[in-house]
This record gives sequence, C-alpha cells and structure tokens, in this order.
Amino acid sequence: MNNFQFVNPTKIIFGKGEIKKLPQEIPSHSKVLLIYGGGSVKKSGLLDTVKEILQEYTLGEFGGIEPNPTYETLMQAVDLIRKEKYDFLLAIGGGSVIDGTKFIAAAVPFTQDDPWKLVVEQLPIISALPFGTVLTLPATGSEMNNGAVVTRRAINAKLPFRNPAVFPKFSILDPLYTYTLPKKQIANGVVDAFVHVMEQYMTYPVAGKVQDRFAEGLLLTLIEEGPKALKTPEDYDVRANIMWTATLALNGLIGSGVPQDWSTHMIGHEITALYGLDHAQTLAIVLPSMLKIMQKDKTEKLLQYSDRIWNIPKNLSDGERISIAIEKTQDFFEAMGIKTRFSDYGLRQEVIEKIIAGLKAHKMIKLGERGKVTPEIAGKVLELSL
Amino acid sequence: MNNFQFVNPTKIIFGKGEIKKLPQEIPSHSKVLLIYGGGSVKKSGLLDTVKEILQEYTLGEFGGIEPNPTYETLMQAVDLIRKEKYDFLLAIGGGSVIDGTKFIAAAVPFTQDDPWKLVVEQLPIISALPFGTVLTLPATGSEMNNGAVVTRRAINAKLPFRNPAVFPKFSILDPLYTYTLPKKQIANGVVDAFVHVMEQYMTYPVAGKVQDRFAEGLLLTLIEEGPKALKTPEDYDVRANIMWTATLALNGLIGSGVPQDWSTHMIGHEITALYGLDHAQTLAIVLPSMLKIMQKDKTEKLLQYSDRIWNIPKNLSDGERISIAIEKTQDFFEAMGIKTRFSDYGLRQEVIEKIIAGLKAHKMIKLGERGKVTPEIAGKVLELSL
Repeated sequence: MNNFQFVNPTKIIFGKGEIKKLPQEIPSHSKVLLIYGGGSVKKSGLLDTVKEILQEYTLGEFGGIEPNPTYETLMQAVDLIRKEKYDFLLAIGGGSVIDGTKFIAAAVPFTQDDPWKLVVEQLPIISALPFGTVLTLPATGSEMNNGAVVTRRAINAKLPFRNPAVFPKFSILDPLYTYTLPKKQIANGVVDAFVHVMEQYMTYPVAGKVQDRFAEGLLLTLIEEGPKALKTPEDYDVRANIMWTATLALNGLIGSGVPQDWSTHMIGHEITALYGLDHAQTLAIVLPSMLKIMQKDKTEKLLQYSDRIWNIPKNLSDGERISIAIEKTQDFFEAMGIKTRFSDYGLRQEVIEKIIAGLKAHKMIKLGERGKVTPEIAGKVLELSL
Repeated sequence: MNNFQFVNPTKIIFGKGEIKKLPQEIPSHSKVLLIYGGGSVKKSGLLDTVKEILQEYTLGEFGGIEPNPTYETLMQAVDLIRKEKYDFLLAIGGGSVIDGTKFIAAAVPFTQDDPWKLVVEQLPIISALPFGTVLTLPATGSEMNNGAVVTRRAINAKLPFRNPAVFPKFSILDPLYTYTLPKKQIANGVVDAFVHVMEQYMTYPVAGKVQDRFAEGLLLTLIEEGPKALKTPEDYDVRANIMWTATLALNGLIGSGVPQDWSTHMIGHEITALYGLDHAQTLAIVLPSMLKIMQKDKTEKLLQYSDRIWNIPKNLSDGERISIAIEKTQDFFEAMGIKTRFSDYGLRQEVIEKIIAGLKAHKMIKLGERGKVTPEIAGKVLELSL
C-alpha cells in the first residue's frame, strides 16, 4: 500500500426531510447567498422550501450556473458577493452548481490576482468563503470533496482545481429530491460515479485490499441499483443507495494509498469543452476503449474486476476474461441509456485531431497511473471509439 | 436506509516513515504532553524518535496508562496538565492510550464538576484540549473516532463515552510500528476490529447496500490478512491492511444509516471489569453465542454473511447455513489464538450472575439493535459460552 494522507471534514446530513436541519448548520446572522442552476430548483419548489427554512437569515440569490460552470458566469457571482458582502454560500443543485460555488468561494477573497490562476496555476489559497450544499443530483461527489472543474468558454478550456479550503462545511443529501430528475440525468450520474470508481481502482495492484473491496462494493451497488433507478424512479432505497454511492465514489477514501488513473476524465473534459457532450457521455465513450488499449498495464486489476464484479468464469483465458469484462462495462453504460461511440453523437474521425490538440494545449500529455497515456495513445483510444 | 449524519474531521497520515510529519501537525510554540502506556514505546525507541522530531517544542511526559485506562490514573494526568498548563496532547500507543487521552482532553477544561460525569451522565462538552495520536496497535479504531471507554477501578465499572469534541486532530499510522507487537496483541486487534464490524453489520437489513459491502470488505480483509500477520509479522502490506481495516471498522462510516447492535461489547466490558480478561477475549467468548441466541432476529443478515463472507453453499437449509457461518466465525477467532469459552480462561457458571448484576448496575438492560437483549437473554448467551 502506498503512503497517503486522508482527511475529509465535510458533514453529511443524509435522508428524507433532513433539509429542516439547515439552520443548525449555518451560523446565525449570516448573510447567505443561495446559488443554483437553470431553475429546476424553482420548479420543484426546493428553492422556496430553503427560503422558508432560512427565513431568519438575510438571503440573496444567484441563479444560472450552467451544466459545465463557466468562469465567465462564476465571476459575476464573485462580483455580486464582493459588493453585497455575503458571508455564507449555499449551493442548491448538482455537481456543476457545487463546483461553481467552490470556485466562487475561493475567488471572492482572492483579490490579489486573476482568480483563473487558481485553476490554471493551481495557486494555493488559505481561505475561502464558507459554504454548504443541498444536493439534488447524485453524480460527481463534489458534495463531499475539495475538487471542482471549471470551464472558460472564451478559450474552450475545461480544467480541474483542488484546494483544502473548499470542502463544503456540510452537505444535505435527501434522496427524495432526485425523484423528479430526468432519466438522462440519473443515468449520467450513475455512469459518472462508476467511472470515478474505475479511475481509482483500475490501475495496478499495490495490495490495497480494503480500497479494492470498497471500490468493488461501490461498482456492484451501481450495477445493481442503476437500472432500477430508471425503471422505478420513486423507490427511496434505490435512490438512497445511488446517492450515497456517488458521494463515496469521490470523497478521497477509495483513492487513498493506491495509484489513480484519470486519463478518461481528462480526455472527456476536452470532448465536452469542444463539442458540448454531457460529461458522462464522454466517459462512456472513452473508458471502454481506454481499458482495451491499456489492458497490458492493467491486466491484474482487469482480471480481478472480471472475477469480482462480473463473475466471469476463471477457466477462460485471461484475454477472454478481460474482453468480456470490458464488453460488460460498455453494455452497462448502454443499458443505462448512455451511448458509447462518437458516431452515436454525430461525431467523426475529424474530431480526434482537435481533442488531441486540446490535450496538448492543456498540458495533458502524460496521463494515466504511469503517465503512459500520451496524446498519441489518446489518439488510439479515440480511434477505437469512433 | 435510515437517515444519518456522518462527519469525521480526523486527518490520517498513513505509511512508513510518516512520523517525520509530526511538526507540521502540531501548532508551533505548543506545550506538548506525550502520553503513553506501559513503556513499550520506550523499549521500541519510538518515544525517543518522537522527542527528537519534536525537539523544538516544550515537552512533558505522562506514562503508565493501563490496558483498560482507569479514571484514577487519568485524573493524575488531568491534575498535571492543569498545573503545568500543557496545551496539546500526543497519545503514543494503542486504543487504551488514545481512549485515555480523549478522557483527559475532555476532563482538563471541565472544571465545573466531577469529570466522571462525562462518562456516566454523558454530559455534553463544548471544548477539549486538542490532541493527536501515533498509533502502535491496530485494534480499536480510536485513532479516527470520538469514542472512548474508561474504567473506574473503585467500582468495577468499564463504560463508554462519546463526544464530538474528542476527535483526534490527526493520527499517524505507520505499520512498521506494529512489527514488534506480541502475537497476542495482533490477534486481539484483529478480533476486536472484526467484532466492531459485526456489531454494525449483523443486525437486520435496511437496504444499506454500500454499508453492507464495505462491512463485508473489512471482514474479508481481516479473515485473509489476520492469520498472515501471525505467521509473517514483518510483511508490510499485511500489517498495512490490518491497520487501515481496523481504523475503518470504527470510524463511523459503515455504521451510518444502519441499525447497530453493540450488545456483545457491553457484555464484554462487564467481563473485563470483573475478571480482567482482554477486551478481544471477551468478544470472542460472547459473539458466537450471541449470534446463536439472537439468530431469529438476525436471520437475513446471517444468511447474507454466510454467503458473502464464508461462501457457504446456498443449497443447504437456512439453519445449516447459519450454524456453519457461526461455527466458522468461532473457528476464525480460535485460529487467531483467541479462545472462545469461559472455561478456557478458568471461569465457570458462577460468573454469570455477577456479569448480569454488572449489566443491571450499569443500566445495560435493553441491548442490541432492537433492545431485546435483556439481562435474561444475556444470561442465556453466557450459559452457551461456558
């Protein structure tokens, strides 16, 4: 097992009706800015519920955070907060709203320079505005980690940043709020969480037995519950399991002490930045081909995966076991309704060059657990996904 | 899944050589009291290492915390700290030293009343002295939770307390420090961690799929690695897996959103308080009989356990599957060198009455996930363990 540090101070408040605990978590006399996305929290009534519960506080609103939150939009919130002196932020929404809120929280006190440098240069920050979240879409795990992904529209860049100062103080996870999500969003969330686990699991063995078992537990839960969530949207336990699984998929725990990959994500970000595909769609396109191309480097873990996740008979050859496991992974994405080829989205051969150029421009040239996923290898992966 | 809150702010610093990071974690200019047990940290050289690493700090020492830390001893440390005004505590040792340090940390600022009330009355406390830990014995999970067990010798009481103020600020987990542990202590630790998992897992199903998978992952790891730790004490990965498993067994995660039992622990505490058996020995005596006596209440989870942990064929009858699973559990404890019957420790029929009296005296009269383990039921369990 590799050496590691793990700390995660976010308080999770999980379950139906727990929104009522909001006032216990936000310091009294706070001036609170409610941050949300395209308005579904208005339609669902959640925004009104929050306002009523927080009626003792001074409240403001900032809506319109996009699915891939942009620097341009987020800086408008930063200006508003600086001007109106809000001192607590409450993100109400999914991963994009929460990611956006993290950038806002870090950018507000960062007055010495352009906050974009927090992303491109990963400048260290010491303080950020405190914030909590009310999660409406299980997917990214952002509700219990200190990472975020921000897009700068002007330059087609979608880039991650990470900072210890941007852990949410608390996150309220009520599975009931996910009942009204469109099927596509639930499917995206399940696939996103699945690939988060894979990026931390599908590398090479370092005898991280607990990490492996936990990762496998999350994958099995997503495989069992994902299709049910599409069929019976109002099954509380199904939604609860998906919600808690997605959170645990990226809260730092299963990745502690083991190598990590993330090449699929970084390539996926380029695809979204260039062609606007949903994040999960890009992952579903890239992952199966990545596993095929990199299978020699991942042989031991692929065999473990084929055995423990897909129950593929051990009397088959290693090659067969691996290829069936990858096929079943791809089938799972398809069964969730997420297409796995560029052609399914009307994209062709000519996109590859642009994606590769994007990777190079953003210095994503040595990806994967061993830094072997060069732009050339990424090209092969993309070819295989046409 | 039940509603739950989960928060755990302890920072884990895991791996060989990580002790060197101590000064990054303790505020400079702190006056630090090093707290340890019977002197094994002196013999092993660890205490000297810590002193050298912390040479820039003002240091004091308090040794002699017992295996079941007593109120009487801990209050001596409290007096010393109040007098000498130490402002940071560093526990160096296993669960007893850490548990003791938690009580000390809470008791020092609690000047308004007898600190024993923190235990018997579970009085809320708002502040405690900050402390970190250097773990030498993987077992109790105390290094990453806010619970402790304290014994008051004068009245044969061994009682738990829990408070959000006593999470360690950090814990350093270096598997190398466990190489020199006596086999019995490693065996005790593995059994203790195993039963911690069982107390949170072996109840009734509430569709906590992730919690179940995580618990099963911990049990499987202990079953695989425990015997290896006895045979090859200097296998780093084996020790690392046991150490991380024991921590995760009781850091609040697997018990979130599911019912919990703890009857075996509470009965075990009485046995230790009366007869001085090691904590793990008492658990190994009580658990198998508890599972037999309570099997009707635990049928569904016992069947899941028999399938996922012990691979017992599903074509056997439910009764057979359950009884084989319990037998295998008992065999595992015995294989670790921990005896599972009172008679193995020279204790007979007559102890039962006293243990029952202890349970009543400490108001442990409705134990278990449904409160059904009355003193009468506990008596049946104990009979079965003679």
